[in-house]
Amino acid sequence: MKQVDKVTRMLARLPGLGPRSARRVVQHLLARRESLLLPLVEDLRHLAHSLVVCSVCGNWDESSPCNLCLDTKRDRSLLCVVEQIADLWALERSACYRGQYHVLGGVLSALNGVGPDDLRLAKLEQRVKEFEIREVILATNLTLEGQTTAHYIAARLARLGVKASRLARGVPVGGELDYMDEGTLSTAIEARQKIV
Amino acid sequence: MKQVDKVTRMLARLPGLGPRSARRVVQHLLARRESLLLPLVEDLRHLAHSLVVCSVCGNWDESSPCNLCLDTKRDRSLLCVVEQIADLWALERSACYRGQYHVLGGVLSALNGVGPDDLRLAKLEQRVKEFEIREVILATNLTLEGQTTAHYIAARLARLGVKASRLARGVPVGGELDYMDEGTLSTAIEARQKIV
Repeated sequence: MKQVDKVTRMLARLPGLGPRSARRVVQHLLARRESLLLPLVEDLRHLAHSLVVCSVCGNWDESSPCNLCLDTKRDRSLLCVVEQIADLWALERSACYRGQYHVLGGVLSALNGVGPDDLRLAKLEQRVKEFEIREVILATNLTLEGQTTAHYIAARLARLGVKASRLARGVPVGGELDYMDEGTLSTAIEARQKIV
Repeated sequence: MKQVDKVTRMLARLPGLGPRSARRVVQHLLARRESLLLPLVEDLRHLAHSLVVCSVCGNWDESSPCNLCLDTKRDRSLLCVVEQIADLWALERSACYRGQYHVLGGVLSALNGVGPDDLRLAKLEQRVKEFEIREVILATNLTLEGQTTAHYIAARLARLGVKASRLARGVPVGGELDYMDEGTLSTAIEARQKIV
């Protein structure tokens, strides 16, 4: 059972899985060899060999530049800066944004030794200079590091004369005040909006 | 991103994963293509192609009969009957049992249309007749269906003149009485043991 143990240990390293759930996954896969395990292996292998990082925005796709960057229906004067590809996907799922993206690949973090040169900032500035970008939306996370990074980028973009914006803050849709932290509530009160 | 979505949907069918965690797993794997995704694909593929069901006990292994059945150090007169291979693995991890196993592959269930012929019962009786089995431990789950199955098998084994036993019932190690259900507590009281 050495092989089973090896795969179990690998699966246990995935987010959301532990040793016990990884074991259940292996058993589930082995019991469905033809219907699930073999197709999954094929698709994972295909994914591993076909996806590339887009040289423009940093997204994953089958081609570089990616389909989002090549899409002529998207607004090319609008650029949304996100930390990770997962954030780009989340925004795409909401289907509310029709501009271009730029993936930083992380956030500034003294603790983790991540400086400006470790993020895709040179490429961002190059895109801003090369194309007519009218606005950059800094959609980093509302964490301390995410906001530090957003402020740093905003300062650099100001030198290039580009307008930078950030996501609205407040109570999330469906949110109950009783469960919100003080920071969210005070932000929501400060930025309260007129009812029209 | 059709490929990514396809893999995500497949992963979301695994136990313990949902659409959101499956997405996180895909992102985690893609970000670690060389160190995790490709090795995992290789190992899963190897597992899918090398594991077979043991024709004797029903366990998975690289050979049939499996290593447990071939192990001459194990007691061949003792047979432990379990519902699933996962149960066999759980008992093996506890390292307290040194006999042979027999995997039923399920439990009797009128609701799910599982009858005696759908379980590996003929093979069990054949083993009991062919080899000198002195005791069969019925280690099915302590669910209604598991216990029904155990009683059914015990009755069939009685006709063959083989001793059948079951696992002890009571409060699990580390269990707090406050969190135990009434069934467990009443069983534990009834089957109380003398302190020596």
